[in-house]
Amino acid sequence: MASQSSLPPQNYGVALFEGFQALDVFGPVDVLNLLSATRTLKLSLIAPTLDPVTTVPAARPTMIGQRIVPTHTYETAPDDLEVLLVPGGFGTRDLERTQPVVDFIKARYPKLRFLLTVCTGSALAARAGVLDGKEATSNKASFEWVASQRAWVKWQREARWVVDGNIWTSSGISAGIDQIFAFIEAQYGEDVAEALAKQSEYVRNKDPKNDPFKALAG
Amino acid sequence: MASQSSLPPQNYGVALFEGFQALDVFGPVDVLNLLSATRTLKLSLIAPTLDPVTTVPAARPTMIGQRIVPTHTYETAPDDLEVLLVPGGFGTRDLERTQPVVDFIKARYPKLRFLLTVCTGSALAARAGVLDGKEATSNKASFEWVASQRAWVKWQREARWVVDGNIWTSSGISAGIDQIFAFIEAQYGEDVAEALAKQSEYVRNKDPKNDPFKALAG
Repeated sequence: MASQSSLPPQNYGVALFEGFQALDVFGPVDVLNLLSATRTLKLSLIAPTLDPVTTVPAARPTMIGQRIVPTHTYETAPDDLEVLLVPGGFGTRDLERTQPVVDFIKARYPKLRFLLTVCTGSALAARAGVLDGKEATSNKASFEWVASQRAWVKWQREARWVVDGNIWTSSGISAGIDQIFAFIEAQYGEDVAEALAKQSEYVRNKDPKNDPFKALAG
Repeated sequence: MASQSSLPPQNYGVALFEGFQALDVFGPVDVLNLLSATRTLKLSLIAPTLDPVTTVPAARPTMIGQRIVPTHTYETAPDDLEVLLVPGGFGTRDLERTQPVVDFIKARYPKLRFLLTVCTGSALAARAGVLDGKEATSNKASFEWVASQRAWVKWQREARWVVDGNIWTSSGISAGIDQIFAFIEAQYGEDVAEALAKQSEYVRNKDPKNDPFKALAG
């Protein structure tokens, strides 16, 4: 954590790949968008190439989807990223297409202040080895598959989100929204998080141990 | 409602404009993306031109944002759209830039099976005249401004979402997620909506009259 500082983070990146889950990104990012109305933030959308990235997984071509325009590639991403957000989605099952994401997490984690994953995004962080020995969680319906990606992680079946050191991992899809509000509360203050939740008309789950979907993890 | 049918809708459109709110779109659309894993759906992303559409409002250029690639323009949108989703966002305040959206709603509403708005998207529907005499709601912190756009609407200050005929309007940002689950329940069945909510690990607010943010509307 070379760039660790007591100032709240300003410089965010999102790791995109084919078949990412739209809400895993836009749940948290929409809150950051709102935050940027009152604070200076930077957000890089990082992808294998500068071509638009689709939410449609290669293995499920009949699904509908949307295409997002990246701002950087994994080669050109800014050096001074402080926070990296890694979404999940069906696309995480594609080990080859997600290898650039895994390599990027592995290379960049030592310089990041915080790593956040949503849903099966924790499978990508696990493959990068950065969760070894740490507590982490993931999507509940996909829990067995995610846990099978790396044995050296202390996988938590019952958690809305988990914080271990500077790594935050959330449960499935919508849990990323509760996690980002908790992260914003920790970094920018409770008043900031509460004002944003009101603006978004979002009823927060503020307890990381309150996991309404734990039964899905078996 | 020329194309009214008892079959659940398959053909969706989303009306995009500069400065739309990301979660107003991707909250509902992510659920439709998941639904399309098991049902044939079509989704058109409609915009003034085929250039990527930014979430950054022209009036707030220092905000961070994301760019989405449209599939159609307001001139080339498919004739057989059944459901049109209209998001809100800071961009709705720009009367000139949103006029193509208003014109499109006005022209297309007679052929739609359903019109759904999220947040201040109801201001655009109101300007199109299609809410005249109907009950509707909107973002709570922006309620006075939205209501001032059209006097002939029966604006509801206390509602998570409102259904009047074939028009669904939701409260601010996150309320669009509760609304889409209720819409899916009405169209495809409770089992389908519940399975999708579990998959998304989303705790639904199922009561349109349960509005945790009514106080913001004054």
